[in-house]
Amino acid sequence: MLTSQQYLDIVNRALGEIEYPAWLPGLYEPIKYTMEGGGKRLRPVLLLAVNDAFGGEIDQCIWPAVGVELFHNFTLVHDDVMDHADMRRGRETVFRRWDLNTAILSGDAMVSMAYKCVSGCPPMFLPEVIDRFGVMTMKVYEGQQMDADFELAQRVSFNEYISMIIAKTSALIAYPCSIGALIAGAQPDEIEAIFNFGTSLGIAFQMMDDYLDVYGDPKTFGKEIGGDILNDKKTWLYIIAQDQDKDSAFENARKLDGKEKIEAVTAVYDNLKLREYGDRLISKYTDDAIAYLNETSISEAGKQWLTDFAHNLLHRNK
Amino acid sequence: MLTSQQYLDIVNRALGEIEYPAWLPGLYEPIKYTMEGGGKRLRPVLLLAVNDAFGGEIDQCIWPAVGVELFHNFTLVHDDVMDHADMRRGRETVFRRWDLNTAILSGDAMVSMAYKCVSGCPPMFLPEVIDRFGVMTMKVYEGQQMDADFELAQRVSFNEYISMIIAKTSALIAYPCSIGALIAGAQPDEIEAIFNFGTSLGIAFQMMDDYLDVYGDPKTFGKEIGGDILNDKKTWLYIIAQDQDKDSAFENARKLDGKEKIEAVTAVYDNLKLREYGDRLISKYTDDAIAYLNETSISEAGKQWLTDFAHNLLHRNK
Repeated sequence: MLTSQQYLDIVNRALGEIEYPAWLPGLYEPIKYTMEGGGKRLRPVLLLAVNDAFGGEIDQCIWPAVGVELFHNFTLVHDDVMDHADMRRGRETVFRRWDLNTAILSGDAMVSMAYKCVSGCPPMFLPEVIDRFGVMTMKVYEGQQMDADFELAQRVSFNEYISMIIAKTSALIAYPCSIGALIAGAQPDEIEAIFNFGTSLGIAFQMMDDYLDVYGDPKTFGKEIGGDILNDKKTWLYIIAQDQDKDSAFENARKLDGKEKIEAVTAVYDNLKLREYGDRLISKYTDDAIAYLNETSISEAGKQWLTDFAHNLLHRNK
Repeated sequence: MLTSQQYLDIVNRALGEIEYPAWLPGLYEPIKYTMEGGGKRLRPVLLLAVNDAFGGEIDQCIWPAVGVELFHNFTLVHDDVMDHADMRRGRETVFRRWDLNTAILSGDAMVSMAYKCVSGCPPMFLPEVIDRFGVMTMKVYEGQQMDADFELAQRVSFNEYISMIIAKTSALIAYPCSIGALIAGAQPDEIEAIFNFGTSLGIAFQMMDDYLDVYGDPKTFGKEIGGDILNDKKTWLYIIAQDQDKDSAFENARKLDGKEKIEAVTAVYDNLKLREYGDRLISKYTDDAIAYLNETSISEAGKQWLTDFAHNLLHRNK
């Protein structure tokens, strides 16, 4: 196994090889801008590491890894339109810096670029890689639609929430894991195990994101604390607080505005001990993920690497 | 060769097999609505006919044909957002009937569905089919960007116009032709010839569309006559009139509004004999297209079918 930084270097080198034709800046500049905006490249790094852990040759899955990163970044470009978001990674969103039509069209083009990269896998794996990648994209769209539907719903169950984040967040982790394993020549049951690793890791990752919106360190979180609270987003904290709201404390807190609302809702969460509950819940899904590694034949070094990756991912910014 | 109606029946039967999961209507209803909105299915019919003309087995390219139709319809959904269009094929656009976010997300999902269908080609052709399909999608986006750039340009040359419509319009005809030939096992030079057939046909098709905006029969054109004139769209008529505008008649006509503007600009076009010039230009590109058929080994019946198709396409609604 290489270090995270080494996998990252490989990903960044390949990303640097993408061409953005200069003759049509209206289409390609926003794509270049987006791809140069940084980000942790978690998904392609994980794809390469899984491939390596299964004894694959990294060269064979660099382009699929880049394709996953392109697709992930495309989702951000279109999401920012749908969410009217002004800023992303400390810079203006494409939608704001250019305009709506530019964000739509450049985003669309990024999907084609992603498919092109993904198609750079060894030909013998192409049918299954394209299929898995395509199913992944549909899961992400389904998750986004469920998330949008939740906004209008009076009440969302914890199970519905889990289904939504499995589609919206886990798919973009689980499918890349399975593609990495597939290209390494892993067997179906091992591919399924590493897919499940990615699914549980994705659930923990999204739950941590919800958690950090309330309990994160403003200095390192990267977003304003309490954004989800202000927007009445159906996070797991919201869902549990609503379920257990016997004295209407949560309902009343939600009626407030601004800083007052954030403080009051956080106080309800504190009373319900959601901070501690969240720690346990996130640890549980992380442990579930790591347990799936034992259903694979990957080396101890590979298991250790992926275990460390999971722990690092979920103790970020706490 | 079958009749156009028979190819169309095959396409419609396959389109009818697409599943639109009922559990997530917010995502799938707009897609179903779009695909059930009719349209002539020109591109998939042509793909099947080209395949048949090259002696292919139609079964092998039904799904790529459906994929092309899905992609074409996706471009309409996102185009209608970018153009703020209210109506399409006599019905509200997705953007109007639902909302912006629905049009973006459903459109995105249609692209994935299109790739999935295209991947249903015989595995031995998959790498090249996916590549051609992907290049086609990028050409369409590039054409759309060029078209958008033209709106802001003071002056566009005839050659720039041709480059734009080759990307925006011809790509969605030429690449499907080449995919049909490829899956029939045609040789590279024949694939190139049928691609060129599609490119010239697409140029003629777009020129006819520009022409009908001015000289079409309002009863059969399907859109209001003069829409391009009101929007100062850089059609070939606009470009030639601007080039030859020695006495500023065109410039002055363009300063008018509404019905007056349409009449005055049309009068300039009439004076420049653009109606007759257009007939000759469109005939020339159509003849070019048909001439390319002689560079292929397809049967006389196949050539006749494609020749008739070209003639029918370009004498529509006149």
